[in-house]
Amino acid sequence: MAQVMTAEELQAFLAVEFPQVAHQFTVVEAGEGRTVVRLEAGEEHLRPGGTVSGPTMFALADVAMYLAILAQIGPKALAVTTNCAIDFMRKPPPGTLLATCRVLKLGRQLAVGDVLLHAPGGEDRPVARAGMTYSIPPEG
Amino acid sequence: MAQVMTAEELQAFLAVEFPQVAHQFTVVEAGEGRTVVRLEAGEEHLRPGGTVSGPTMFALADVAMYLAILAQIGPKALAVTTNCAIDFMRKPPPGTLLATCRVLKLGRQLAVGDVLLHAPGGEDRPVARAGMTYSIPPEG
Amino acid sequence: MAQVMTAEELQAFLAVEFPQVAHQFTVVEAGEGRTVVRLEAGEEHLRPGGTVSGPTMFALADVAMYLAILAQIGPKALAVTTNCAIDFMRKPPPGTLLATCRVLKLGRQLAVGDVLLHAPGGEDRPVARAGMTYSIPPEG
Amino acid sequence: MAQVMTAEELQAFLAVEFPQVAHQFTVVEAGEGRTVVRLEAGEEHLRPGGTVSGPTMFALADVAMYLAILAQIGPKALAVTTNCAIDFMRKPPPGTLLATCRVLKLGRQLAVGDVLLHAPGGEDRPVARAGMTYSIPPEG
Repeated sequence: MAQVMTAEELQAFLAVEFPQVAHQFTVVEAGEGRTVVRLEAGEEHLRPGGTVSGPTMFALADVAMYLAILAQIGPKALAVTTNCAIDFMRKPPPGTLLATCRVLKLGRQLAVGDVLLHAPGGEDRPVARAGMTYSIPPEG
Repeated sequence: MAQVMTAEELQAFLAVEFPQVAHQFTVVEAGEGRTVVRLEAGEEHLRPGGTVSGPTMFALADVAMYLAILAQIGPKALAVTTNCAIDFMRKPPPGTLLATCRVLKLGRQLAVGDVLLHAPGGEDRPVARAGMTYSIPPEG
Repeated sequence: MAQVMTAEELQAFLAVEFPQVAHQFTVVEAGEGRTVVRLEAGEEHLRPGGTVSGPTMFALADVAMYLAILAQIGPKALAVTTNCAIDFMRKPPPGTLLATCRVLKLGRQLAVGDVLLHAPGGEDRPVARAGMTYSIPPEG
Repeated sequence: MAQVMTAEELQAFLAVEFPQVAHQFTVVEAGEGRTVVRLEAGEEHLRPGGTVSGPTMFALADVAMYLAILAQIGPKALAVTTNCAIDFMRKPPPGTLLATCRVLKLGRQLAVGDVLLHAPGGEDRPVARAGMTYSIPPEG
């Protein structure tokens, strides 16, 4: 699968299309079939007990998959999530969270991938894992 | 399954334990095996195209299930989501979204339920559906 | 959503298209938006401990959703499952298992529904719950 | 995570505990955090169109995860699947199917992992992907 957008282009796209949330996410890497996005989880992302909330992790997984698809098909803002199955495995403390996404299938209508969330250096102890399906809008 | 917290008590609990987000959610109903939570989706909940974002719908489903469990086991802030599988079926416009949760199993360690998200009057055209599992902390 | 196949027609379709497994499943009901399929779980469906196996429950949920879709779109053998998220909640003993399926969305390309599995009379204590997505083949 | 059962021991365990289905599955590899199981899909595993059925793929993913857990905790027949989310991405033709499982979390009560299903040599074009959770029985 070809790569048609760089990490910088993805970051710029996010800033234009998702101005409310773009500042939270940093595109760390966007290579062949692998995209890495970073979140700095602060006070507003926590839940009782002081760990990062589920909706925050969902949002990070969702944006990582979205950008991994756009990296391969170009800037189509209207690609939408149709399904997500997420396992929360460990409670992440505040701080840096990384999402690593791989695209497993890129069809004309549907894209399927999975995402691992982990703290820096903790790829072998992921905090969450998600499988996601996106619907790709037809050519306009 | 007994009901040990009313809608008012759940609302008050949310305000104390989740002060960052509690104002977004209104507990509409908390009866036997059925809990309804309302969100008024505004500008900050939208994504490109002007429809309610996936993370917003996830957060609404998550809080509805959380409160449905607490309604039956009492105020344990540390119950945590371990799994969520969500289908996004229709794009919801801004405005009111209702989440209706039913608890299907309430074990000692795990609770399983599902949630339908719909606009007022649109129970037959749900915008999303989620299956969720929560881990219940042991008695302390 | 209109109903275009009856329970009898679904049963006959299954016998022709899925001869290896059709004898296991009985279409109990196929009404508006609700389809019920029965399995008599015998020795070959059990796992260690003497309870019905996960693959057996998956197969029952899968066929129930398949038939619920065909009831509304007619006999298209090539509709295929693209996603299933299933929660196994209680261990079912050998004997009768019922799957009740409701179709939540019937689009041109994708159909989404959910299925509850329970023993006769045990709808309030389901043994499993599944969310399923099927891809519908284009008109040929 | 330590490895306490070899591929040969897993195969022997399967033959004793799951005599109905054990002959279908071959344990190819059981190393640190990675278990590979093979299925030869024949006539009885097919669905209309001549491709491998969903329940067959589910069963293969399920047994791969089960054996991956036992490889690390020893022969506990009563570990049970509590959740599975599976994406069917490509239609596999009859013949060899491989399931590669990695265990992502092994807690005292729950184990979480994921499984990729692919034809030999086709790891970059998986036919299915599953996330699975097993409940581990307490020490007896």
